[in-house]
Amino acid sequence: MFKEYDVIVVGAGHAGCEAAHAAATMGSSVMLITMNMQTIAQMSCNPAMGGVAKGQIVREIDALGGMSGIVTDKTMIQFRMLNSSKGPAMWSPRAQSDRMKFAEEWRSVLEQNTNIDFWQDMVKGLIVEKGKVVGVKTGLDIEIRGKAVVLTNGTFLNGLIHIGEKNFGGGRTAEKAAKGITEQLIKMGFEAGRMKTGTPPRVDGRSLDYTKMEEQKGDLHPGKFSYTLTEPLTKQRSCYITYTNQKVHEILKTGFEKSPMFAGRIKGLGPRYCPSVEDKINRFADKDRHQIFVEPEGWNTVEIYVNGFSTSLPEDVQYRALSKIPGFENVRMFRPGYAIEYDYFPPTQLNLSLETKLIQNLYFAGQINGTTGYEEAACQGLMAGINAHNKVKGKEEFILKRSEAYIGVLIDDLINKGTDEPYRMFTSRAEYRILLRQDNADIRLTEKGYALGLADEDRIKLLHIKKQQTAELLDEVKKWKVSPEYINPHLEQLNSAPIKEKTSIYNLLKRPDISINDIYNFTPETKASLAIYSEEIRNQVEINIKYEHYVEKEQKMADKIGNLEDLRISETLNYDMLVAMSKEGREKLKKVKPKTIGQASRISGVSPADISILMVYIGR
Amino acid sequence: MFKEYDVIVVGAGHAGCEAAHAAATMGSSVMLITMNMQTIAQMSCNPAMGGVAKGQIVREIDALGGMSGIVTDKTMIQFRMLNSSKGPAMWSPRAQSDRMKFAEEWRSVLEQNTNIDFWQDMVKGLIVEKGKVVGVKTGLDIEIRGKAVVLTNGTFLNGLIHIGEKNFGGGRTAEKAAKGITEQLIKMGFEAGRMKTGTPPRVDGRSLDYTKMEEQKGDLHPGKFSYTLTEPLTKQRSCYITYTNQKVHEILKTGFEKSPMFAGRIKGLGPRYCPSVEDKINRFADKDRHQIFVEPEGWNTVEIYVNGFSTSLPEDVQYRALSKIPGFENVRMFRPGYAIEYDYFPPTQLNLSLETKLIQNLYFAGQINGTTGYEEAACQGLMAGINAHNKVKGKEEFILKRSEAYIGVLIDDLINKGTDEPYRMFTSRAEYRILLRQDNADIRLTEKGYALGLADEDRIKLLHIKKQQTAELLDEVKKWKVSPEYINPHLEQLNSAPIKEKTSIYNLLKRPDISINDIYNFTPETKASLAIYSEEIRNQVEINIKYEHYVEKEQKMADKIGNLEDLRISETLNYDMLVAMSKEGREKLKKVKPKTIGQASRISGVSPADISILMVYIGR
Ligand SMILES: Cc1cc2nc3c(=O)[nH]c(=O)nc-3n(C[C@H](O)[C@H](O)[C@H](O)COP(=O)(O)OP(=O)(O)OC[C@H]3O[C@@H](n4cnc5c(N)ncnc54)[C@H](O)[C@@H]3O)c2cc1C
Ligand SMILES: Cc1cc2nc3c(=O)[nH]c(=O)nc-3n(C[C@H](O)[C@H](O)[C@H](O)COP(=O)(O)OP(=O)(O)OC[C@H]3O[C@@H](n4cnc5c(N)ncnc54)[C@H](O)[C@@H]3O)c2cc1C
Repeated sequence: MFKEYDVIVVGAGHAGCEAAHAAATMGSSVMLITMNMQTIAQMSCNPAMGGVAKGQIVREIDALGGMSGIVTDKTMIQFRMLNSSKGPAMWSPRAQSDRMKFAEEWRSVLEQNTNIDFWQDMVKGLIVEKGKVVGVKTGLDIEIRGKAVVLTNGTFLNGLIHIGEKNFGGGRTAEKAAKGITEQLIKMGFEAGRMKTGTPPRVDGRSLDYTKMEEQKGDLHPGKFSYTLTEPLTKQRSCYITYTNQKVHEILKTGFEKSPMFAGRIKGLGPRYCPSVEDKINRFADKDRHQIFVEPEGWNTVEIYVNGFSTSLPEDVQYRALSKIPGFENVRMFRPGYAIEYDYFPPTQLNLSLETKLIQNLYFAGQINGTTGYEEAACQGLMAGINAHNKVKGKEEFILKRSEAYIGVLIDDLINKGTDEPYRMFTSRAEYRILLRQDNADIRLTEKGYALGLADEDRIKLLHIKKQQTAELLDEVKKWKVSPEYINPHLEQLNSAPIKEKTSIYNLLKRPDISINDIYNFTPETKASLAIYSEEIRNQVEINIKYEHYVEKEQKMADKIGNLEDLRISETLNYDMLVAMSKEGREKLKKVKPKTIGQASRISGVSPADISILMVYIGR
Repeated sequence: MFKEYDVIVVGAGHAGCEAAHAAATMGSSVMLITMNMQTIAQMSCNPAMGGVAKGQIVREIDALGGMSGIVTDKTMIQFRMLNSSKGPAMWSPRAQSDRMKFAEEWRSVLEQNTNIDFWQDMVKGLIVEKGKVVGVKTGLDIEIRGKAVVLTNGTFLNGLIHIGEKNFGGGRTAEKAAKGITEQLIKMGFEAGRMKTGTPPRVDGRSLDYTKMEEQKGDLHPGKFSYTLTEPLTKQRSCYITYTNQKVHEILKTGFEKSPMFAGRIKGLGPRYCPSVEDKINRFADKDRHQIFVEPEGWNTVEIYVNGFSTSLPEDVQYRALSKIPGFENVRMFRPGYAIEYDYFPPTQLNLSLETKLIQNLYFAGQINGTTGYEEAACQGLMAGINAHNKVKGKEEFILKRSEAYIGVLIDDLINKGTDEPYRMFTSRAEYRILLRQDNADIRLTEKGYALGLADEDRIKLLHIKKQQTAELLDEVKKWKVSPEYINPHLEQLNSAPIKEKTSIYNLLKRPDISINDIYNFTPETKASLAIYSEEIRNQVEINIKYEHYVEKEQKMADKIGNLEDLRISETLNYDMLVAMSKEGREKLKKVKPKTIGQASRISGVSPADISILMVYIGR
């Protein structure tokens, strides 16, 4: 029934969609198998993409030629640049999506790719021959052959849903769980674990009183995710902010004894940074209120996502507590919040390419690796798709360094440190935060994406224009000198020290208290000179000038460590011979089998002394 | 958590959506509970509405104020008036729908109705007190109270899906089955049965060669379903026609021994008039080919519905057979065809209002009553919604007569004759076919819908305009006399006998070989005179004139029988006293408890002699 495919992708969530799209665009024949073709790219939880650190990931995916950014741009209902008060290097884009349209658009993107075939079915096992995966077996007992397989099962593997004292099997509410894969992989020697995540109730927007909440509008000049020419929004929908209070907390507490988490019925560990509301009032007992974001689920629907109120307490407790929140007095619920437990595979069992160490040509991506979040899943899918393609076509692995992308940080963290709780990206995880900005993901990555055969030529053209115009304007502001009489009155207005002699705009921009926007607004002439460049270019120039020093410093550090990254360790190295090394270090190294000294240095439990011994041994 | 509702509707398929909308629009507070809010109004099988007899039903739903017509108009991708060569009285509208948009639009319609609340959950039982339903119990063990309950569970009750030798529980592919309700109802004394239906595989449109098929375009001047001012289509997508052949049949036969139907694993009876392809080649062994309609699933998707190829043979047999169909040589499948078995309740257990005889205020509508088809389901939902509302508000039952609507025929058939196989509407089931036309459903029903508080005033206005203009034009064509010299050359051209003296257009239109369109095209003056009326009005006039005689005859018959319909039988009548009656007649009457002599006369097993005895007894 089926030809042999280059790459089989199991699951069409965020990871699976990016994986299939990437491998197919690069030229692999791809089979995308998913349990329900009606739920391709379904957002399981909040209808939003991006946010701090996560927004940067979406920009990186886009810069490489992935589709999450474009799909979001086409289907968002609100856009906000977070941290916009903090200077452009800290900015993080975030969009509220139309849940239905997001899924529709992704499906359409995949259908338009002639290299992708589809099959609706549940994969229940892998076909492995001589330590190499060669296909999958489905619930209908069909065998589909492929040279590589990417597993992106999300929260579906033995998924168990909890609401209060009730629990039932399912991969998401109203969807079936997937069985078979975990059991087979354990037999083959994999280690599996159990995690949990939760989601808040959905309510009827018609039952809310928005006059009691704070309106949160989208940005006046909304940005977007993709570096391509997608259209920015011309109208937006608002979100609203309200708060829990002591009454809400008291009611929630009445449900604690029936809580599947507190009662220990849930064994898996949940995301510490995305806690349930019962967790929040339990752990932060001194806080008398928590913020609630009231987020619409789409352009037209009245369904509302109650962000900040994730819970698995009994549904009547959810309801009673909700109704004490200002604006929610007459709330009607559509679906209760719930928690879900699912199997994951500790990601230390993977190489940096996301290929498993135990079985060749088998890749894991997304929530199956113990991460949480659409963006984290999507970028892993992208990398697994690229690497599966490259492997099958006899090409090099594609690895991003920690200094090159949040994606590099994420995968490096997972592979080397593993994770016991659902892993989510934060800016604090990246040591090169000034390098890894949302505004320069294209500069960092698009040429790589193009070399891979993933990013198309138009992207390269746009990148070149951006680089060229930035250089031009940078040049101009260096040459463009202003006199004290001309500029001092303006500087004074901004409480910035006056200049004494003719000074370049470039030098003025070095001042932390002068932005390019200030200069733009100084006089009709400054406006005219700068207005021929887009805001993006002007911001590039400002960032370039203001952060020059930091960027250089980080880059130097990255280069230094990069050298360690280039020191390869042989796969056949026998660590038992390195008797001088600490026992713990030796064990960890044996387990992880790092490919470079850089990677070895980041394994938890491996000390700097161990690294020195290793370096001596490999001849440095 | 929930207030007491006037009407609880269980299930948001075609029946449930119409039921919820009707009761809510009439003023009931409605709770719509469904297993998955993401699949509201999902089309389980073919993405099409209408067709012969079914199209009339959609027009009737629309005329009463239901929404299936409007939703279809807004989301269709192709419209064709079937039987358009046969004269307007035989016309049947049919539309190809965008499956996703259809569901989205229905959901949006329901959300816009402020009387409808939603809850996502599985109903597992009813709460019955003193022989009257007072609420439902859900999978989450929540009790929701309501004064009336409409069950519209479709194919979900203990649904079992079959593909070849495999079977698994499910209400539709990739959706869970519903449990609990059947078991409880049986305990309460209901009789349940088992039926089956099937669906064809879905394939990848990109893998088909359309040059080997016949294109089937939409109508040049596409019509629509709703009598309201919905917009007709300005662009359309084509369907394609191809055929099976001996090779296809031979391959299919190789799967017969694994067929769940032929092997007897499927116990339920399937729809005789909508047979699986294996049934067709088995039953019509002499036919060397069967027609296949290749139907797109939406505006943008590449997914294709293979109409005519419903099957539950093993998926590899499906695949190999498909690939021998011209144009399908390189076919790729998305999802296999399958059969599904489910519980239904023989509808003789219902009153004409669709209320169950055993439990008060409990209504059944849709596939649960042993019918098949969206239109059949939707119209039952509409009637159950109306009647549940009326009951709760202390109003009269709303019953449509067989002479008033296909809906009346359908419900009368179900209640009195029951059905052993999935019941589908055909024009042959209606004895008043000339009365029950697609062009006059508004004339037949909109005033009733308005009186119910369901159809809005705009509909009445449009109806009055239509009636008035029709009367006007009818009057004009009576007065409008043409001379032989003027008209005979044109009659000659149409091979119609010449006239000898001045004759009215009215009289010419009585001729079977002269249509109003012919007259329209005779001369610039005839065109000018007629063009001030819309095509709809011109057709009304033609039908009025041409079928005057038949309409009168049917109306007379209907009136005669209608008199029997007005002869009410007391609910407390003790049939055992009627010893003169045949035993079978007595038993059937005791079981069905007809409300009128008319209804009694249509019960199978009740003879005309029995009816005479009954009439004597009640004093006629
Ligand atoms: C209840 C819930 C709450 C969540 N809460 C949060 C949160 O608060 N914050 C946050 O950041 N993230 C949250 N998430 C996580 C977020 O949804 C996931 O991180 C993200 O969707 C993971 O993407 P994925 O592609 O790995 O998997 P998924 O999006 O889960 O997609 C998996 C896909 O694989 C398919 N599939 C699975 N098994 C098989 C099989 N055997 N055969 C065929 N197909 C298969 C499924 O049908 C599905 O299409 C939550 C998820 C859930 C379910
Ligand atoms: C595989 C298949 C093939 C078919 N083939 C044909 C065909 O060839 N020709 C044809 O004319 N018709 C066919 N049909 C039938 C057509 O789909 C149905 O007639 C029509 O959809 C019935 O409408 P309904 O509203 O009665 O139920 P459905 O459309 O089945 O909707 C039932 C709804 O109720 C919900 N539900 C069920 N139980 C519960 C519960 N306990 N609690 C909460 N919610 C519940 C479900 O989630 C669903 O939303 C087919 C159906 C299927 C599944």
